[in-house]
Amino acid sequence: MNYKQLFENIKAKRSFLCVGLDTDITLIPEHLKSEKYPLFAFNKAIVDATARYAVAYKPNLAFYEASGSKGVLEFEMTVEYIKKNYPDVLVIADAKRGDIGNTASRYARAFFETINCDAVTLAPYMGADSVKPFMEYEGKWAVVLALTSNKSADDFEQLQIADQNPLYRTVIETSMEWGTLDNTMYVVGATRPEKLREIREFCPDHFFLVPGVGAQGGTVEEVSEAGMNSHCGLLVNSSRGIIYASKGEDFAEKAAEAAKSLAQKMSAALKSKGL
Amino acid sequence: MNYKQLFENIKAKRSFLCVGLDTDITLIPEHLKSEKYPLFAFNKAIVDATARYAVAYKPNLAFYEASGSKGVLEFEMTVEYIKKNYPDVLVIADAKRGDIGNTASRYARAFFETINCDAVTLAPYMGADSVKPFMEYEGKWAVVLALTSNKSADDFEQLQIADQNPLYRTVIETSMEWGTLDNTMYVVGATRPEKLREIREFCPDHFFLVPGVGAQGGTVEEVSEAGMNSHCGLLVNSSRGIIYASKGEDFAEKAAEAAKSLAQKMSAALKSKGL
Repeated sequence: MNYKQLFENIKAKRSFLCVGLDTDITLIPEHLKSEKYPLFAFNKAIVDATARYAVAYKPNLAFYEASGSKGVLEFEMTVEYIKKNYPDVLVIADAKRGDIGNTASRYARAFFETINCDAVTLAPYMGADSVKPFMEYEGKWAVVLALTSNKSADDFEQLQIADQNPLYRTVIETSMEWGTLDNTMYVVGATRPEKLREIREFCPDHFFLVPGVGAQGGTVEEVSEAGMNSHCGLLVNSSRGIIYASKGEDFAEKAAEAAKSLAQKMSAALKSKGL
Repeated sequence: MNYKQLFENIKAKRSFLCVGLDTDITLIPEHLKSEKYPLFAFNKAIVDATARYAVAYKPNLAFYEASGSKGVLEFEMTVEYIKKNYPDVLVIADAKRGDIGNTASRYARAFFETINCDAVTLAPYMGADSVKPFMEYEGKWAVVLALTSNKSADDFEQLQIADQNPLYRTVIETSMEWGTLDNTMYVVGATRPEKLREIREFCPDHFFLVPGVGAQGGTVEEVSEAGMNSHCGLLVNSSRGIIYASKGEDFAEKAAEAAKSLAQKMSAALKSKGL
């Protein structure tokens, strides 16, 4: 999926919602825990209930790897299910991978060939080597960590580089040269709308994947106001606020309600920008 | 395994060799490709042939994930085999993980509980959040990327921070405060011995995991001279130079010869430092 197609999907669904599938075996409803593939059973129900409101899903690998290779199998089953039943939806593997070129190309193969994900989140610390192999796949995306939503983002991401700007700005400005609008996004946390606004100034066109709405404190309104561009340019993620809206048997129904509520705010935000 | 035990193992084996299990399904000998678990079959033979010369093994997850969940299963089988048969050997999952605290703790569970690894390599970009959960396990290690051996390490790792030092130095000095000598190591590439020497000055006691010997150009002598401390303080990794020393049926025998050759250089380096 390229930049234009993603924007078309957003306009068609009137939503730029990404649902984070942070599916924790200890937090899913009791009645699913006896399933052979409990993580997949949970995800399938969540996806079927929320797909009309979402343009992307973002399973975070940590929650699957916590169950070992069986959990990774359930991640694969989830991706396959989404791509088969909702082919227009973007699947972002939130894996935050990063390694030297020789090895990064194996990760790219893992997520783009062995498993049919559309995008992977990447840690930029090791430089171009660790990002470029993901940009060599037509229709796939490298989602580079820029300014994340966690408190300790201050430790390094916000360090001032000599005679320049903060590290996250250098990361964005440098890596913008490596790829295109069709294969590069940035992770920019929702918890600091003023930073989102600042980043939008020097990175006007790229899509941003924005976590931190809901449980972490950001709002759709603030994020849209600070970061939306003429092609929307935003995928706003919510994980816990949707998938754990209820821990009972009505979990999928409540997830749909939570997704619908966010999508309605997104529809209003798109309208107010004339999109 | 703590700092002291690791040093005792190094003295007992007269080696600080870490064998990198970058086991690529396309590069293993033909006769193994028809095995049900070819990556594991290869690793088992390599480990049995080299364990007398190695104090650590470092499987890089990218090569296993390239085969999907089945590859991850073969990674698990490899770790289990090593820990059962060679319990004194350190198993380092070269995974370069990094995520916010809530999620990082799931990765720690994956590698330290679900799978019985001793150490995991970590990308520091997101700060303390992404590293500290790995330091909460007695006898386990967080191996933090500092200055890596790839060319594009220059993109960000070597950036000068305003009024301070390069980013990698800030990463090390900051994260030294998070853990102890018993649970923290740093990745420092072998390809720049002058940097290794500089880092040893402000980080005198920690163990360094040093990749880049062999195929990437560093030598045991240079690395030892620049980085060894009174507790050795070095794990020097070789991957391709050992595991692909031969692509024929004698691959394990040739791997043993390559490992032995490196271990002999390490024994001499230890002796010359009076260890």
